[in-house]
Amino acid sequence: MTRWKLTIEYHGGDFSGWQRQSHCLSVQQVIEDAIFKFSGETVTLHVCGRTDTGVHARANVAHVDIAKETTADIVRDAVNFHAKPHRVVLVDVEAVPDTFHARFDAQSRSYVYRIINRRAPLALLPDQAWHVYRPLDVAAMQRAADTLIGHHDFSTFRAHNCQANSPMRTMDVLNITHEGEEVRLYTRARSFLYHQVRNMVGTLVMVGNGQWTYEQFVDAFQACDRRAGGPTAPPQGLIFWKVIYPQNNPQMK
Amino acid sequence: MTRWKLTIEYHGGDFSGWQRQSHCLSVQQVIEDAIFKFSGETVTLHVCGRTDTGVHARANVAHVDIAKETTADIVRDAVNFHAKPHRVVLVDVEAVPDTFHARFDAQSRSYVYRIINRRAPLALLPDQAWHVYRPLDVAAMQRAADTLIGHHDFSTFRAHNCQANSPMRTMDVLNITHEGEEVRLYTRARSFLYHQVRNMVGTLVMVGNGQWTYEQFVDAFQACDRRAGGPTAPPQGLIFWKVIYPQNNPQMK
Repeated sequence: MTRWKLTIEYHGGDFSGWQRQSHCLSVQQVIEDAIFKFSGETVTLHVCGRTDTGVHARANVAHVDIAKETTADIVRDAVNFHAKPHRVVLVDVEAVPDTFHARFDAQSRSYVYRIINRRAPLALLPDQAWHVYRPLDVAAMQRAADTLIGHHDFSTFRAHNCQANSPMRTMDVLNITHEGEEVRLYTRARSFLYHQVRNMVGTLVMVGNGQWTYEQFVDAFQACDRRAGGPTAPPQGLIFWKVIYPQNNPQMK
Repeated sequence: MTRWKLTIEYHGGDFSGWQRQSHCLSVQQVIEDAIFKFSGETVTLHVCGRTDTGVHARANVAHVDIAKETTADIVRDAVNFHAKPHRVVLVDVEAVPDTFHARFDAQSRSYVYRIINRRAPLALLPDQAWHVYRPLDVAAMQRAADTLIGHHDFSTFRAHNCQANSPMRTMDVLNITHEGEEVRLYTRARSFLYHQVRNMVGTLVMVGNGQWTYEQFVDAFQACDRRAGGPTAPPQGLIFWKVIYPQNNPQMK
């Protein structure tokens, strides 16, 4: 029995999210079924980021135990072969100690949220960005975002059906950059509440498009109440970017 | 009658290329039909870059004459409305003098070609990049590419059915950059021969993956014979990037 660490890229638009469900296709099911096809084993993946319907991943990480004697290259190529034509691939596979846990060992998770800010609709990335047509003031968004850094109660950005024990989280990074038409948010924390990133983005856009002042944003955050926050940004702009593990396990840059 | 300059973004995978054809859908047809729907006029677009099936555009430029009195904003929004659900949009519309010609006035055209260089297939950009799994030596590719700069006979990279009068072209820029898994070629010239960029890319990849030496590349180029060149890179990695006109007409950066 070997424990394998899988680094996974997928297009969220093809799936009803990460988690296996009975009536619709999930990323988890595609990979578990692919492992069954090459090993004959019914396995269960444990993932770091249980993404929602429509949310993409560049480097989500899961672990799985496989009894069959094999190699990392074979696991990667066999799963990628059997997962076709679904848009999910293992970009990296690595043998890890039996004590490794993809979810509980994660030291930090990072997400990227992409916005295309222009009048015209999107022909090239309609399924991988949020089209915001009102001009965004990125400096105002960054000023508001800076207030979220540190240890806080994030109830304002927490989905009502979030299952976390506490609304307290520590936000390490929240950077907003602007290049041409693209506004890109990069955020990193040990963990996030359910819908936290999309709710932060939706609320920051309220500041960026001038509907909210900085003070209104701070008031909403301090209200610690989801009803005080802005709308939830759509899923297709969100990409699960990277996981960091202790001992700096090899990871994509 | 006003002449309009249209800056156009489209996803090449949805169309049989730019040019109107009787039995399949072209970018030209979608825009001409959309103009008919809002103006009642049967118009003909004149485009700078007549891209092939599968090739994308970020900022291709066409001009068109419309008799109906209207504004740039209305042309843009009306065409974008009527072009739905096809992945083609006008990102910019501008009134220009009657003497402006999108094709003949172009001072330079630029293209980007995207390669994802890794073992695993592509889940996020399968339709907007070429997946090359043999590791590429980008420095070797750049050294070979440098020999193409300047005024030369490009017959080695010219499709057999190219309709240009001469195989002579002047290559201004051919830069190859590497960031993470992505290898990106940027090229600029006054004009290109038919399939020239894709043939150059396919041949440079032969150098990058070690199948050809620098000397073999130079010999192939100097042979001035398409049969001496490497394969044609697939269309989905190619993006028509930008056109420059004299007097520096406002263009996307």
